This record gives sequence, structure tokens and C-alpha cells, in this order.
Amino acid sequence: PKSAGRTATGERPSKADTLTIAEKDALTKQESGITEQSPMRLRMEAFIKQYQKEIVAALEKVDGKPFLVDSWDRPEGGGGISCVLQDGNVFEKAGVNISVVYGRLPRAAIAKMRVNHKALDPDVDSLEFFAAGLSMVLHPSNPMAPTVHLNYRYFETADEAGNSNAWWYGGGCDLTPCYLFDEDAIHFHNTIKAACDKHDKAYYPRFKKWCDEYFSNTHRGETRGVGGIFFDDLDETEKDQEQLFAFVQDCLGAFLPSYIPIINRRKDMPFTEHEKQWQQLRRGRYVEFNLVHDRGTAFGLNAPGARVESILMSLPLTARWQYMHSPVQGTREERLLDVLKRPKEWV
Amino acid sequence: PKSAGRTATGERPSKADTLTIAEKDALTKQESGITEQSPMRLRMEAFIKQYQKEIVAALEKVDGKPFLVDSWDRPEGGGGISCVLQDGNVFEKAGVNISVVYGRLPRAAIAKMRVNHKALDPDVDSLEFFAAGLSMVLHPSNPMAPTVHLNYRYFETADEAGNSNAWWYGGGCDLTPCYLFDEDAIHFHNTIKAACDKHDKAYYPRFKKWCDEYFSNTHRGETRGVGGIFFDDLDETEKDQEQLFAFVQDCLGAFLPSYIPIINRRKDMPFTEHEKQWQQLRRGRYVEFNLVHDRGTAFGLNAPGARVESILMSLPLTARWQYMHSPVQGTREERLLDVLKRPKEWV
Repeated sequence: PKSAGRTATGERPSKADTLTIAEKDALTKQESGITEQSPMRLRMEAFIKQYQKEIVAALEKVDGKPFLVDSWDRPEGGGGISCVLQDGNVFEKAGVNISVVYGRLPRAAIAKMRVNHKALDPDVDSLEFFAAGLSMVLHPSNPMAPTVHLNYRYFETADEAGNSNAWWYGGGCDLTPCYLFDEDAIHFHNTIKAACDKHDKAYYPRFKKWCDEYFSNTHRGETRGVGGIFFDDLDETEKDQEQLFAFVQDCLGAFLPSYIPIINRRKDMPFTEHEKQWQQLRRGRYVEFNLVHDRGTAFGLNAPGARVESILMSLPLTARWQYMHSPVQGTREERLLDVLKRPKEWV
Repeated sequence: PKSAGRTATGERPSKADTLTIAEKDALTKQESGITEQSPMRLRMEAFIKQYQKEIVAALEKVDGKPFLVDSWDRPEGGGGISCVLQDGNVFEKAGVNISVVYGRLPRAAIAKMRVNHKALDPDVDSLEFFAAGLSMVLHPSNPMAPTVHLNYRYFETADEAGNSNAWWYGGGCDLTPCYLFDEDAIHFHNTIKAACDKHDKAYYPRFKKWCDEYFSNTHRGETRGVGGIFFDDLDETEKDQEQLFAFVQDCLGAFLPSYIPIINRRKDMPFTEHEKQWQQLRRGRYVEFNLVHDRGTAFGLNAPGARVESILMSLPLTARWQYMHSPVQGTREERLLDVLKRPKEWV
């Protein structure tokens, strides 16, 4: 790798554009800190770092136990902070993770991404890229309390001169109950819809549908849960960068109000051994989706130098698979499956 | 679909070669039964059916509880028999499954298979195919008793005239302990090696290596277990069909002698709560391999009309994922990981 952007004599090279974006960002942080004038990479990094702290603090208040905080560096560039709570009072397993990655995309990956981003140069062997995201999965112990997943990310590529080239946002948030309380699904969707509506009235219906389609165990003909929103590849063909950043900030900001009231009313509900077993079977379906269908998990596991423990943090503490299990007619278990087979409009 | 090979008046069509292989096989079974002169499809089907019965009978003797026997038809052609034992005395979950499938391969699948089988015609939109196999996974309750997996299969394609075109055998058998007893691994490998050596002295070393390479959780740098043998695409470029059928029969015949002595000496060993938890974590790794890496599972889950319950029968009853779990230095848990990171020669 190049030195940190300085020559052997300590002078900065005369052409600043011989620096990689990783080197440029390191210099900016050191020399001027992060402001609203900083590149989006640094603003997104600062935003998810601050928001990770807020979420962890709020969840610690709900659970009563502290998260374990694990910082790690990626040998290839960048790093992350994994906050994990295992065997808590409320959460069986909770992970709130941020990662900030600088690296190079090989030709094959560029070709794939070019389908959605024409700005990408098809005639290079590799491209420098930046990716920053916050991802979270919370699995509560109580089978009446739903699992929730959230991920928001920003992606950018740079040309050889270190100038940013293509960029886009992706992410979403979705709810996976074992026992369905309609009021929870309605509250969750309403809160997210309000955040979307501030930016574009078309966003919620469009991204709600995308979520139902993406989080689907197609081999079982069931969605993973009762949905939420999901989107990817939002770039300048959608809205300008400031507008999309504001949208993603509002989506992330909607998370605590969407989920905290739900977990508070479900975490101490009484439940039976039978209900706990049904939760374990549903956890098995969660594992199936994440390992068989989720593109992010597959991409992560196949990336060289991947931090497997942070990627698989999304898996529940325990799960169960029973041959030919089928819920009894007329039960709440059967009603859940009906809704997963035919996704509902909640607002 | 065509009628069962007869015209409306009950006569057989004058040109027998207008029949599909599914129709030809249905006629043969009805008119002459299955003999050594029958097509390999029918001989393989008869062999795996008989062997499924033998295995199930032997396992019922070990466990003391009977298997549930589930026969099913594939609407697209063929069917299978799933034998399942759940919450047994010895086996937490045991599945012994056969399937016999007649169907059509789409162009994309033909192109993939042509890499290994030049006899396949690249210039057709689809090809009729036949696949028959026995697959089995046994997960014992006792953490001292290893999980075992076995699969042997025969595949054939036919041209438009219903004449068989390409054909091949694949399969293998491998052992996955949570606690390693060297004598078990040695006995298992020795038994399989003896079956291989009868046919070709090069088979065992070649297929042992293939097994270690295939059953690998590459994202963790660990093999799934202590291996066994694995092979695929064995066709006329390897040996003639009779010789390969005899080889596969001997491999299947080696299963009971390779595993029954092991399960009998481990099934009643004392164990601690800590050891049970380690087993649950290792079960998590088993799920990771099957859902992330196993080509058979992926192929099955993406096939139209797939019987998901029979494919996912291979998953354990229960599994566990703990963030950053790492065994204590000098323990048996650590030794297992060392062996999985650097596969050993057992014979």
C-alpha cells in the first residue's frame, strides 16, 4: 500500500489527486475534522457512529444489561464497531454493527454493479470503493416480542485520481414476529411511512413492496416477516445526494420510535412452552433466509478478509427444524403463516 | 403430458422410440419387472429402495423407536420415500430418503453440465433427465456420537427419441463429530477405504481429498467434519457403467459396518451440559455448510416443485450461534478445531 499520502521527506505530494480516497479521508479527519462540507463518506461515517451509540443506549435501557463493544480493523482498509448483547434480560441476542470499508472492486463486481450504475467505468481492471453502513438484528427472548432487522448503507466508487465516481444508498428495516399483533405491525409501518412521506409520497408504497419481495423465503412461499421498507441503488437518477442523505437519516431516526413501544409492551408477556417452541421453529426460517437468500450475507461471506462473526451476528442464538411441522387449524400460528403467504397492507 | 405410452385404442405406438424414458420405464416395470437386463435407471431405483429398507431396519434396532415412512409423488414425474425419526432414544433427528425423478433440464442447466459431460447436446432447448439417489443424515442426541451423512446418486439424460445419452454417478459419505475419538475416524475411513480398494486403489486417496475440499465451511477455514469420501461426474471416461454401479453398491454396502460400531459405543456415554452446548454450536456450523455451500441443497431449493421438507431434513433438530465463541486452549473442543483446520490422514 502507498504511504499515508506523504513523501519520504514528509511533504504532501504536489498533485493531491494521486491520493486514494482512503488517504484523502485520513488527511481530512486529521486536518479539519468532519463538517457539513466534508465528503459524504465522512458524513455518513460520523452519522452512523453517532446513531449506533443512540440505539445501543436505548436498547441497554430496555434490557438492563450492557452491550459488549468490539472494535476491529480490516487489514485491507477500514474497520468497524460491533456491539453485541447475548443472553440479556430482554434480548436473547442483539447486534448493532457499523462498518466502514475502503477497498478495491474486481472487474466482475464492477460489471454486475454497472447494470444499475452507468457511471461506472467498464474498462478498468478494478476500482477503489468505499462502503459504510449500520446493520442491526435484535432477537428478543419472549416469543410475543418480534425480531427486528435494520440496515442502512452508503456506497461510493472512485476513479484512479481519487475522485468520487458512482455513489448510492441502500437499506431498510423490517419486523419478524412469531405471534402477530396487528397493532404492532400497524404502528411499525405507520412510523416508517411518516419518515418516508416527508421526502416522497411514493417512497413508502414502493419500498414496502420491495421489502415484501426481497425478504422472502421463496423456497417456502413465505415472506420472512411482516415487512417494513427496503430499497437499493438510490443515486442521482432518483434525487440529489443531500436529499437522499436526509431521507436515510430520517429512516434511521424512525427506528427507535417504531420499535421501542413494541418491545416494551411484549417483553414481559406470559408465554407457554409450546409458544417458545414455535418461536424456535420461526428462528429456523430466519436462518434459512439469511443463509440461503440474503445477498448481503453471501457477499460478505465470500469477500476476502470478511469478518464472519460480524456478518453472522444476525443469526439467532438458537433455532430448530422439525420435519413436516404444520400449525393446527385456527391457531395464531396458522394465522401468521397466512399473512406471510399473502403480505398485507398495514396502513 | 403424453398418455402412458398407449394410443386411445390401447395399442402401443408402432415406433417405441417416441416414448419418453419415464414412459418406457413405466412399461418395463409393468410388463417384465426389474432384472439385470433392465436399464440402469430401474436397477439403481431397485437397489436404493432395497438399501433404504436395510438401513432403516438397522437404525431402528439401534434406536428402539420406529421411523415415520412418508411416500410422496412429484407432480412433474417420479417421487420418493422419506423415512424420518425425530426425538428418538439415540437419534435427535434421522432422515433416510430416496428420490426418483423424471423431468426436463432447461438449456442453462445443460450448458453447466456439459463442462463435465461432452456427450450432452448443446443445441437443444431442453433434455429429458432421470435422477435417482439415496441420501441420509443422522444427528444423534449424545454429543459424543458423531453426525453422519451419506448420498449416492445416478443421473442420466435422454435424447428426443428416449435413448439414454449422458449418464454419471456421484456421492459420498462423511463423519462429523463434536468430540473427536481418533479410533472412530480411523475405523470409518478404513471401512470406506476397503470398499474403494476393491475397485481401484487410486479411489480412496482421490475421493478422500475431494471430500475434504467439498465439505468445507470456506468462510471459516474449517472442514465440516473429519471427512470420508466424495465424488461426482463418474462416467464412461472413468470406468464402464457396470463397474461404476458395482463400486457405488459397495460404497453403500460399507455404510452400516462403518457407522454402527461407532454409534453403539458412543450413544450411552455420559456428557455434561457444557458438552451439549458445544454440540449445539457445532450443529450451527452444520447448518451453515448445508445452507451456504452445499450445491445439492441449493439445486434442490431452486428446483420448481422441490419437496423442501425432504431437502431440509438434513438440518439438525436444534442449533446455536454465539458471537465470538472460541474454545479454551488445550481442551478437546480446541483439538477438534485444529483437525478441521488441517485435515488429517486417518489410514
